[in-house]
Parts: sequence; structure tokens; C-alpha cells
Amino acid sequence: MKDKPSELSEHWPGAPVAGNGLLDRRVFLRGTLGGLTLSFTAPLAAAPRDALVPTQRAPGRPFENYGQPSPHERSVVRWIAATEGVPGNGISWTPLEQLDGALTPNGLHFERHHNGIPDIDPALHRLRIGGAVARPLEFDIEALLRYPRVSRQCFVECGGNSNAAWRRRPVQTTAGNFHGLVSASEWTGVPLAPLLDQAEVDAKARWVIAEGADAFSLTMSIPLSKARDDCLLALFQNGERIRPAQGYPLRLLVPGWEGVLNVKWLKNLYLAEQPAMARNETARYTELMPDGRARQFTFTMGPKSLITRPSAQMRLPSPGFYEISGLAWSGHGRVSRVEVSADGGESWAEAALAEPVLPAALTRFRAPWRWSGGPAVLQSRVTDETGRVQPSRAELLAERGRHGYYHYNAIVSWAVAADGYLTHAYVDTPPETTPLEDLFMDEKWD
Amino acid sequence: MKDKPSELSEHWPGAPVAGNGLLDRRVFLRGTLGGLTLSFTAPLAAAPRDALVPTQRAPGRPFENYGQPSPHERSVVRWIAATEGVPGNGISWTPLEQLDGALTPNGLHFERHHNGIPDIDPALHRLRIGGAVARPLEFDIEALLRYPRVSRQCFVECGGNSNAAWRRRPVQTTAGNFHGLVSASEWTGVPLAPLLDQAEVDAKARWVIAEGADAFSLTMSIPLSKARDDCLLALFQNGERIRPAQGYPLRLLVPGWEGVLNVKWLKNLYLAEQPAMARNETARYTELMPDGRARQFTFTMGPKSLITRPSAQMRLPSPGFYEISGLAWSGHGRVSRVEVSADGGESWAEAALAEPVLPAALTRFRAPWRWSGGPAVLQSRVTDETGRVQPSRAELLAERGRHGYYHYNAIVSWAVAADGYLTHAYVDTPPETTPLEDLFMDEKWD
Repeated sequence: MKDKPSELSEHWPGAPVAGNGLLDRRVFLRGTLGGLTLSFTAPLAAAPRDALVPTQRAPGRPFENYGQPSPHERSVVRWIAATEGVPGNGISWTPLEQLDGALTPNGLHFERHHNGIPDIDPALHRLRIGGAVARPLEFDIEALLRYPRVSRQCFVECGGNSNAAWRRRPVQTTAGNFHGLVSASEWTGVPLAPLLDQAEVDAKARWVIAEGADAFSLTMSIPLSKARDDCLLALFQNGERIRPAQGYPLRLLVPGWEGVLNVKWLKNLYLAEQPAMARNETARYTELMPDGRARQFTFTMGPKSLITRPSAQMRLPSPGFYEISGLAWSGHGRVSRVEVSADGGESWAEAALAEPVLPAALTRFRAPWRWSGGPAVLQSRVTDETGRVQPSRAELLAERGRHGYYHYNAIVSWAVAADGYLTHAYVDTPPETTPLEDLFMDEKWD
Repeated sequence: MKDKPSELSEHWPGAPVAGNGLLDRRVFLRGTLGGLTLSFTAPLAAAPRDALVPTQRAPGRPFENYGQPSPHERSVVRWIAATEGVPGNGISWTPLEQLDGALTPNGLHFERHHNGIPDIDPALHRLRIGGAVARPLEFDIEALLRYPRVSRQCFVECGGNSNAAWRRRPVQTTAGNFHGLVSASEWTGVPLAPLLDQAEVDAKARWVIAEGADAFSLTMSIPLSKARDDCLLALFQNGERIRPAQGYPLRLLVPGWEGVLNVKWLKNLYLAEQPAMARNETARYTELMPDGRARQFTFTMGPKSLITRPSAQMRLPSPGFYEISGLAWSGHGRVSRVEVSADGGESWAEAALAEPVLPAALTRFRAPWRWSGGPAVLQSRVTDETGRVQPSRAELLAERGRHGYYHYNAIVSWAVAADGYLTHAYVDTPPETTPLEDLFMDEKWD
């Protein structure tokens, strides 16, 4: 079977452009097919020419004020990994492999909470801007809603996303439960810069210390230059007001930087000459390097991509044509290029990028592939507009050593077995034994 | 009050660029403020320099698998106008004035159902392609999910949206309950063209007749050229699978054309030389013109815009600075320009457009405005990339007469009273008495 194209595949217009069956992305573009049939699968049956599917005979359900997904899609939910013994502490993962497009529905945006989701009455909430300012200010939500707003589509990614890939053996789970601490939305809110101008920030100030109103009181330090550049006080997400789990009524948006900086339930912005040196910028979100020193304030999320379909724990039903589809992003700017490999990085084909391609946003990529039925290793590699390239796992480990935890952005490999089943694989790093510390990695969400 | 700028407004960097207080849109762009303060409102209070908002003392709510909006936003819902006596027949309106950005959350997308929302098991659903084809085909959803997909952000607008504006006196309701039969999403699905190729459409075929699986069995005829051009079998909306009320498991997407063509619960595509002349393309969705003849198959939604904030039934609390914000779109392509007037069309200022600006998508526009406290009439006017300009109400009535019902796309006027209250107004058409036929307009949703 593996070397004999099916009846439908004979219609395929293009020869492979990279090893193991990768085809030219231009077959997706209208007008390049030359009348040939893009037959990815056989239809169920040849139906009689005039056979129509019969009509339902009873009225359907009534209207609703606010819609919900189909009960048939009830498996499309976030996996919740809560920390035992700490109420409301944990994470939930966006099921990336079950979604398509470049945006995440609000109900499925990943979450990271330290002490649960506070119920905040927007009429009582306040934002204060204080510290090294000439005019300390206090706003309620109604006052903030008077200011001019901007909208932008961008991702939020947890600095600890994909950290299971630091383990010495490949962890087997779905793409979303592995890499799903990244989501993308259209955010709308008030730019921070004019509010800082209004508060008359002292010339010596270099940091903005943001604090949330949850019981954990998450505190994070952000360079003033970034705050002035493109930070938003986000009030709307994908058109509607931000939901409680995303920071209602007010969230700080720090485009392209670590998710933890996007402080939810924002209540204080404190201007200072020095960072706060708070728990989540000292005991957490620092990285021990091979030379024994730790990196700190590693804000920007690097270039990263992964194939979401097909991906781990899926099974290809038969040899033939498939669309490889995935997400690429970089905190440094726009995605400029995504390449896909079906032979573990021996050869690469250019993927098609879905418009719009926006800075610090998720970009959907697609590439056509003909699976022969033999072993394959699927990978994607992104290059961003600054020229930064997503590293291989070997390159990442060479730079960062074996004590990494945050900012894992190496190429992801999905191995396809002869029966079509996909697993997570390491293909360019040697096998390692599993020391005890791996056992503790799940415990770090605290 | 009206001629004396407030203390904060003295910081304003720019002089008005159009009558009645419209300011230069470039004040929104970073770097043009020259250190001046963009003070749209006074903050609540000058707070003590180090006063911080206190921290919550109790853990918040736990994680959820699928998130929901805040209970404090329970007024942000769709208004449902159901037809008495016909189960599941009616419409629901997107609350445009309560949203921001250019996308609509799935739970608030407008709806038009003729006989309720069918509960379809995706495992049992079929799509048939038949009629004038050499190879009639039948697909289940799993087979369709094997095909290559595309994603695009675009609007869906009901052909009857805004039809209350055909009435002889301005109807007073919110912007959403008036113009909210338009919504925008990122849609992902399978292009129709390769499936039609696979079915080997007869050379004589000119129309695709699409039929839905609801009890109403909505049937619509679409030119084959449009079907081949950019129609999609939509499976995903804003990242997740389409919801039941939007056509789960499968909807036809016909970008930029009348909403009714975007057949939900799609089950049949029938190729033919002639259109079906079905109820919704003969008894409905035709337009009686001044010469006594009716237009038919008026597919494309024309250039249209409206200001969503401030808008009817809102009240400006005091004179001062406001952001005028709204939505613009055209079924013919991209929005190229939006102008805003504060003096009922006497003078116009260019609005800022939020990126991305995409073909047949909603585009968010924004313009700064200083309300003096005197009477004002707010309007917006869009020009699309084909050069088409949104008409005034007088221009639309001159072309279409007084028997119009569909495709109302004239400039919308919000009158601001001295107390700040906004109402819907006609400013360029003479007052008319209200004949009986106006009373029947609400009854036409059947």
C-alpha cells in the first residue's frame, strides 16, 4: 500500500517538495490546480444524482440570549491541573489539537491561577497608579471606559508552557495538554502610556510594579519602557468584556512577553526605580544556566511553533493525503516563515501562512502531505521577522543545559508509526535516564 | 460650560479638524502627543502616593473546563424577537453597543432561525453534492475534516439588517437592537471549489442550490462562480467547532453576501442551470423599486458603517472628550476609509482604522471628539476599496423609493441633546406621516 498511490491520489498535481511526501504549499492557493482534483479523501459513496438528505420534521430548539457549544463537543474542554491543598492554584490547558484558526474562544483560553478566581464587583473595583509619580491617580472602571481604546490580536503564553519537554524522556499526552498554555484573542483596552503621562512619572522611575486583586496578590515588575511602548489595560476580549477567569474587570496586557506579566484583576501600578524582586521574579521565572548563574527577567517569548494536526495520540486512518496544520508565533514580532518536515528535519517544505499575520499573534500554518504508510517524523520550525529561528531540542539544551524550566521553545517532533499512531519523540538528543528531579516537575505549579 | 474647556482639556494637543469638536485621529497614534496629556476624563481622586488597593483575604472560585462571562455582565445578551405562533422562528440581535473590537464572541453572534435550532448528531449528518454533476458525492463530517482548510475573518450580515430605518419616523432603540444583525468571526472550513471539481460539475451548470437540514429546510440559490470563488464549508468559528445555533456541524459561508445565503446545518448542494426560485429568493429578499419592478438576487452587502459608542439611548455624562467608536464593512472588499461627522454631515474628519483591515470583515474605527455641551449629530461614512461610498438616507431613498425592506445601508445619525442623551434621527430626509404599512414591518420575520 505504501508505495502505491490510491485511485484518488493520482489526481495530485504536484510532486513532493521535501522528503517523505511533503507537497508544495501552493496547491492550497486558488488557481494553481489547473483543473485537477484536490482529493484528500474519498467521499463516503457515490450517491444517486438527485438523492437529497431528508428534511427534519419537527421544530428545533428555541432561541437563547447567550449561546453555548454543542453537547456533541463536550470533550472539547480544558484539562485542569490543580495543585492539591492550595485552593484555586493550578493551570488549565487550551485543547489546541481540537481547535482550528488562529484565535482561541474565550471559554477555552488557558488559565493560571494562584488562589482562585475572585468575584469582583466592577462598581467597587479601583486601579491606583502610585509610587514615583507627581500625581498619584485612582480610577474606577467607568472612568477607564471613557479613555480612547485600541484593539489588537495577540497571544498570551505562560513562561512555563511546554516545560514537560525539559524531561529526559518524551512525555506522552495530547498537543494541548503539553503545549496548551498559549492562547490568542483580540484584546481591546486603554493604552497605558497616556495614563502614565497623566500621573507624571518621575524621571528616575524605571519599573512599573503591577499587582492583582486576587488573594494571592500576584506582583510583577515590568520595565517602564515596555509599559509605555504597547501595554494595555485590557477590558474586552474577543469582543466582549473580559471574563472573571481572565481578570474581570481589568487585566494588564503585555504583548509578546511572559504570560505571568499579564496581571489579572489589576489593581495597582506602582512606579519605582527598582523591580519588586517579588516571588514570581526570583523564586520562580528565573532559569539556572549551565555556568551556574541564573537568568532573570527573561521577558520575551521566543519563536515557537508546533503541529496541532496531526499530533500526539491521534491515529492516521490510512495512507494518503493529509493537511499538516499548526500554530506559530514569536514575542519579537511577526512570523515570517514556517517550514515543515516529515523526515525528522532532514528536509523541509515551506508552509502556507493564514492571513492576517500580526505581531505577537498566533499564526496558523498549513502544508499538504502524502503519507506513504511508512515511519515519519513531523516537525515545524518558525522564523520570525527579526530573523530569530526556533531552535532544535539539541540546540536548546546546548545553550540552556539540563536545569531549564521556563521558555522551552524547541522544535516539537511527532513520530508516526506504521499503524498511523502519533507519539511525542526526541529525535536529535541522546536518550537519557530519568533522574528523580523529573518526578517533581508537576509539583512546581504553586 | 459649553465654550469653556475643562481644566484637563487644556492639555489637548490638537485643534479641531472638523465641525463641532472633531479632533485629529493622529492623537491616537503613539509619539504624536509630544508629552502632552491625553486626558479624556478626570481620575476619581488624587490618591496618596503609596496608597494601595487592599488585597482579598479569601481564595476565589475554582477552575472550570469551559469558561463563562461574569454575572456582572448579564445584561450583555442578545435581544430575541420571536414570531408568535411559529416555533423557533425569529431573530436575535448582537448587542453591538456593548461590545468592542472587530470580532463577535460566539455566544453573541446574531441569529435568524425559521423553525428552531436542530440537534444534529455529527456522526449521522451527511452532505450530498448532486444534480448537474458527473459524480454525485456524499460526505460525512469525518470525511470533510480530512480536506485542507482555510481560515478567514469576515462578517455575516442579514439582508434585512437595519430595516427599521425604512420606517417613516426614526425608531428609538439601542444600536444593537437596530443594526445588530451583523457579526464577525474567524471562520475555518473546507473550500467548496475542490469538492465541486471532485464531483465533476456539468459545463451547463450555473447555480448551486444549498439546503439546510432544519425543519424549515431553508433553500437558497448561489451562482456557481461565487461558490468556486471563495465559499467555504465552515466547520470552526472563532477557533472552536461551530455551535448548534450557527449551523453545527456544517455551515455554508458566502463571504460578503446576504446572511441568508450562509445556509446553516448544510445538507445538500444541488447543481443546476437555473436557480431554485425558492421562497426566500422570490417572496422574500427581493426589493420593489420606484419603477414598479422588483430587484432579485441582490447578493452583495453594500458599504455600511455605524457609530456604536456613543449611540442611541446612551447619555454623555458631561461635556468634554469622548472617543467615537464604531464598525464599518463592505461585502465588496476592504474598508479603505471611514469619516466621522459631529455636525450632521456638514463637515467630516478621518477616523483611525484598527488593524487588521480585511476583505468583507468588520473594521473598528475610532475618532476623538470634544463635546461642547451643545447639540450635535454624530454620523459615520465608509468608503470601500472599490470606491463605493455609503449613501446618505436621502440618496438611498432617492434610488430605492419607499418600498424598500432589505439592503438598508445608509448613514446612521445619532442626535445628541443638550443633556447628553442620544437618539436616532433622520437629518436629510423630510418628516413623513406614518402610514399603516409601517405597523406591519415587525411581522415580516417569518
